[in-house]
Amino acid sequence: MSRVYNFSAGPSCLPEEVLKECAAEMLDYNGTGQSVMEMSHRSKAYEPIIQDAEAMVRKLMKVPENYKILFVQGGGSTQFAMVAENLGIHTGKAAYIETGVWAKKAAQEAAKLGIEVTTIASSKDKNYSYIPKVEKIEGDYDYAYICFNNTIMGTHYEYIPETGNIPLVADISSCVLSEELDVSKFGLLFAGAQKNLAPAGVTLVIIREDLITETPRAGTPTMLTYKTHADNGSMYNTPPCYTIYVLDKVLHWIEKNGGAAGINKLNVEKADYLYNFLDNSDFYHATAEKGSRSLMNVPFLTKYSDHAADDEAAAAKEKEINDKFVKEATAAGLVNLKGHRLVGGMRASIYNAMTLDGVKALVEFMKKFAAENK
Amino acid sequence: MSRVYNFSAGPSCLPEEVLKECAAEMLDYNGTGQSVMEMSHRSKAYEPIIQDAEAMVRKLMKVPENYKILFVQGGGSTQFAMVAENLGIHTGKAAYIETGVWAKKAAQEAAKLGIEVTTIASSKDKNYSYIPKVEKIEGDYDYAYICFNNTIMGTHYEYIPETGNIPLVADISSCVLSEELDVSKFGLLFAGAQKNLAPAGVTLVIIREDLITETPRAGTPTMLTYKTHADNGSMYNTPPCYTIYVLDKVLHWIEKNGGAAGINKLNVEKADYLYNFLDNSDFYHATAEKGSRSLMNVPFLTKYSDHAADDEAAAAKEKEINDKFVKEATAAGLVNLKGHRLVGGMRASIYNAMTLDGVKALVEFMKKFAAENK
Repeated sequence: MSRVYNFSAGPSCLPEEVLKECAAEMLDYNGTGQSVMEMSHRSKAYEPIIQDAEAMVRKLMKVPENYKILFVQGGGSTQFAMVAENLGIHTGKAAYIETGVWAKKAAQEAAKLGIEVTTIASSKDKNYSYIPKVEKIEGDYDYAYICFNNTIMGTHYEYIPETGNIPLVADISSCVLSEELDVSKFGLLFAGAQKNLAPAGVTLVIIREDLITETPRAGTPTMLTYKTHADNGSMYNTPPCYTIYVLDKVLHWIEKNGGAAGINKLNVEKADYLYNFLDNSDFYHATAEKGSRSLMNVPFLTKYSDHAADDEAAAAKEKEINDKFVKEATAAGLVNLKGHRLVGGMRASIYNAMTLDGVKALVEFMKKFAAENK
Repeated sequence: MSRVYNFSAGPSCLPEEVLKECAAEMLDYNGTGQSVMEMSHRSKAYEPIIQDAEAMVRKLMKVPENYKILFVQGGGSTQFAMVAENLGIHTGKAAYIETGVWAKKAAQEAAKLGIEVTTIASSKDKNYSYIPKVEKIEGDYDYAYICFNNTIMGTHYEYIPETGNIPLVADISSCVLSEELDVSKFGLLFAGAQKNLAPAGVTLVIIREDLITETPRAGTPTMLTYKTHADNGSMYNTPPCYTIYVLDKVLHWIEKNGGAAGINKLNVEKADYLYNFLDNSDFYHATAEKGSRSLMNVPFLTKYSDHAADDEAAAAKEKEINDKFVKEATAAGLVNLKGHRLVGGMRASIYNAMTLDGVKALVEFMKKFAAENK
């Protein structure tokens, strides 16, 4: 068996030692004679697992006491609705910063549910290759919404907008626990787990208690009401137990690697290694602007993209080179490097579980490919 | 390592060979060098898995061509809302048969979302210990709703109500693929997977195509619209990939065991063994009435329950005996037998993956316990 380096944008690579533990415990967790997959969520065997996962999130993210930590289902797309339905209840107005597909989808969902959405800034003018500078957000908004790391565009906020009394909501799906974050600056944070935390199927929500309302917008289903989950320790109905178990293991792995600060140091080292190579290459270039670059998602193009927008032959050549890159990389054990169609080229997602060795192997491959395809 | 017999009502025991395969493939699925947990849902490695799961459901349940098979998140409780929001769009009226907690919760959720709910029958008069006989449902209802197997009460429909043009909706969470079922009699079927199909975290929905509307009730979130999932092969956003992978394995295990018909034969044998013992015991008795009994969930009481309702000392004695039963059973490797508080006593959930040997071991234990506690 030979493990590959997996640069998938999500679901993504997991720490190998976590997978080994999962395999070893599959038929008998901790002497219970059961797999965690088989456990009643209300059993003495399972409850400590979800409780530990919650405690580990609180510890690693330094979540203040006046915030609840929830595990829910439905991914970020469900959060787009839940945020609007539970927070948009006073003026019914919300401010969104548009930094790519997911921020836009969140705004569209809020508008669909009756929220008066104001897009207060956008980086659409440059295909979302940067984060607009919006240091202060003011107005009678029920909340302000940002996507803190943009998986597709490879951008990341290097600042947190000041919002005064307006609760700041952030989608941190692709950067959760990749760095230290001051939770107290936010009203609500959420993260689909399938990038940095666990397999797909659970969403982490961190919500300030005063935002947990009993009276969301009319017609909000029980399951889309944060209070339902907050009042029941994320066990109003059966949670995705096994996924939370893997998440708990990943959290312990993060702790062993120095917590958010330690992992961040490794992430900076990995990203610097790759960006430095890209910035000094005459064959490749990163698409995200300096000052807005993600540590987690690194889209890049080759020089063959230079005239692809306005020249059919050049576009065909670019496609040929990109396809060749992805094919040869895959053969070399570097997988899931195809770029998103909205950016083109390639994308290396280098989440927490990607090793520096993996990034180095990628750069070595890129050098070789460049030399062979000049 | 010693595996136990797990009688949990859900999440529940899974076939041991499925767990062994999961363990063996954990670090490298099928030579990909990745765990299924790590795979992009849009990858060539993963897509065949979800497609096979869908095809296997269609094959095993003989799902007609004019039905879509969906994998969604949020459990039955989310379906309570989705059914109301997507089907309750013409007259806004719906008929519910109340056969226990889950049927009632479904009706309450529909009412909360603005549906005019009529409870056309109920077995509340006898603590839901039977299924009311409602052979025909008529009226201007948008849909009629039943809970086909009641996990808590241990009851099951032995007939399918005739509803003419009214789409019949059934929650089959705790009996899915435990028996043959004529899907064409229903407009919509759903099943949380954590009882008979997979670990918790995915819900199977089978919906007749004409019920997939583009215009659900006002304020329905995108993720709670069936059309969103139907139009995108259950991949509008990241599905719970790994859970679906386990589900696919369980479906193949069902096929190997004779499909729905073969599994049902085994289930009848297991249930008959247990009910025959209970019906001939002077120490235990089943709580569900004959003619309404579930093959999957078997609640039972001891003779110490006889006067517990109106006698404090008897109630204390009953509790003592029940606790002793559960404790000694657990020590004997028969776990999760505590009854639901709404029924009391004990409950043995004997889903597809429970073996006849497990049921026999339970009955042997019950005999011994009865002899020691007369």
